Amino acid sequence: MSNHIMHAFDNDLKMLEGKIMQMGEMTKTAIDLSIKALMTHDIELAKTVRAGDKAIDALQRDIEEKGTLTIAKRQPMANDLRAIVGTFRVANDLERMVDLAKNIAKRVMTIDLSESQLKKAPMAFDTLSRLANERLDSVLKAYAAGDTEGAKTIWGSDDEIDAGYNSLFRELLTYMVESPKNISACAHLLFCAKNIERMGDHATNIAETVWYVAKGEILGDDRPRG
Amino acid sequence: MSNHIMHAFDNDLKMLEGKIMQMGEMTKTAIDLSIKALMTHDIELAKTVRAGDKAIDALQRDIEEKGTLTIAKRQPMANDLRAIVGTFRVANDLERMVDLAKNIAKRVMTIDLSESQLKKAPMAFDTLSRLANERLDSVLKAYAAGDTEGAKTIWGSDDEIDAGYNSLFRELLTYMVESPKNISACAHLLFCAKNIERMGDHATNIAETVWYVAKGEILGDDRPRG
Repeated sequence: MSNHIMHAFDNDLKMLEGKIMQMGEMTKTAIDLSIKALMTHDIELAKTVRAGDKAIDALQRDIEEKGTLTIAKRQPMANDLRAIVGTFRVANDLERMVDLAKNIAKRVMTIDLSESQLKKAPMAFDTLSRLANERLDSVLKAYAAGDTEGAKTIWGSDDEIDAGYNSLFRELLTYMVESPKNISACAHLLFCAKNIERMGDHATNIAETVWYVAKGEILGDDRPRG
Repeated sequence: MSNHIMHAFDNDLKMLEGKIMQMGEMTKTAIDLSIKALMTHDIELAKTVRAGDKAIDALQRDIEEKGTLTIAKRQPMANDLRAIVGTFRVANDLERMVDLAKNIAKRVMTIDLSESQLKKAPMAFDTLSRLANERLDSVLKAYAAGDTEGAKTIWGSDDEIDAGYNSLFRELLTYMVESPKNISACAHLLFCAKNIERMGDHATNIAETVWYVAKGEILGDDRPRG
């Protein structure tokens, strides 16, 4: 690329990365609020989370459109091309995380934790969602800094969230066994727990993207699993 | 574009679309086999499904890499550019469908439908997965033909699969209420049912992509829902 085009490409890429970080902040908020709504049975808050995903969808489309235009106009190669493709991938993972938060918010309508034997369950949800949000926060920092070693560490360390999910899964089954009255609410809570675990998986995907953008290689399938 | 570049672009696009159709066939097979493994508690078949997703992942990466190279080399604009972005999106949806099938296969290890009161459940899974696979088949045909009206019809018609999922969800809850012994297996079956419903959602996404590629517009958020 000529100096002029290189400069224009760098500006385009910075603009796209800025949009990713903006999406990331919105995603963290959506996760926080969905769990808060679940824990406090706050229907209005749940509605706010559900309405918020339009803004995320619009940002994702914006990133895809501006990104493809950048590829067409600047014809980047190798790592520059990967950097643009990387913004598509990260935007996709963030959009899916918000979708999972929205799904938790949707279930708040049908679950009331305060009115049952399930009063203890929210603590486990709080812990699990904090882990997911910390994971997202760390991987976004690694993305912004192009920190491949940091990304690899995050990629290899979803044991804690997996263990938390498995323990919550078992806990919910015991409430179901204790009383048939808990079964319907717990069925929805199982999906909420699974959604948080999947948020952790998307953070793992983002870590893979950070690695791929910088190195042009795929982080192997030999990821250590708990 | 000059005639020469237009011809080269068309060849690139045809090659990418061929890979999408290949991914589509593999996806249909993965869905079929995962449900067959679930219904017959066939651990070996489940293992085959789990191993098969590497080939899908590789095809998806191949589409992304060849597609970005095409954008960089041919600088397509407007609908040509959207056609390439469309292949990324469809590949992503297909990869996720295979992931869902793989997740069902993983649960086959822990669920044995034949050894419990759950003997009736498989029929509902068979029906639901057939619906999902028919939906995928139709939308792939619409994609291959660039048939926007066909895509719109598919996009507006996931009522049947949603109704089937809701009815299966309730059926599974009744097995749980009937006997605590069913609770653990049914918890896994709830996730299997949800996975099939989500396959239907991905078919909807593909229908949206067919529309977007041809028209450059987003199919509205006013989709009729059951």
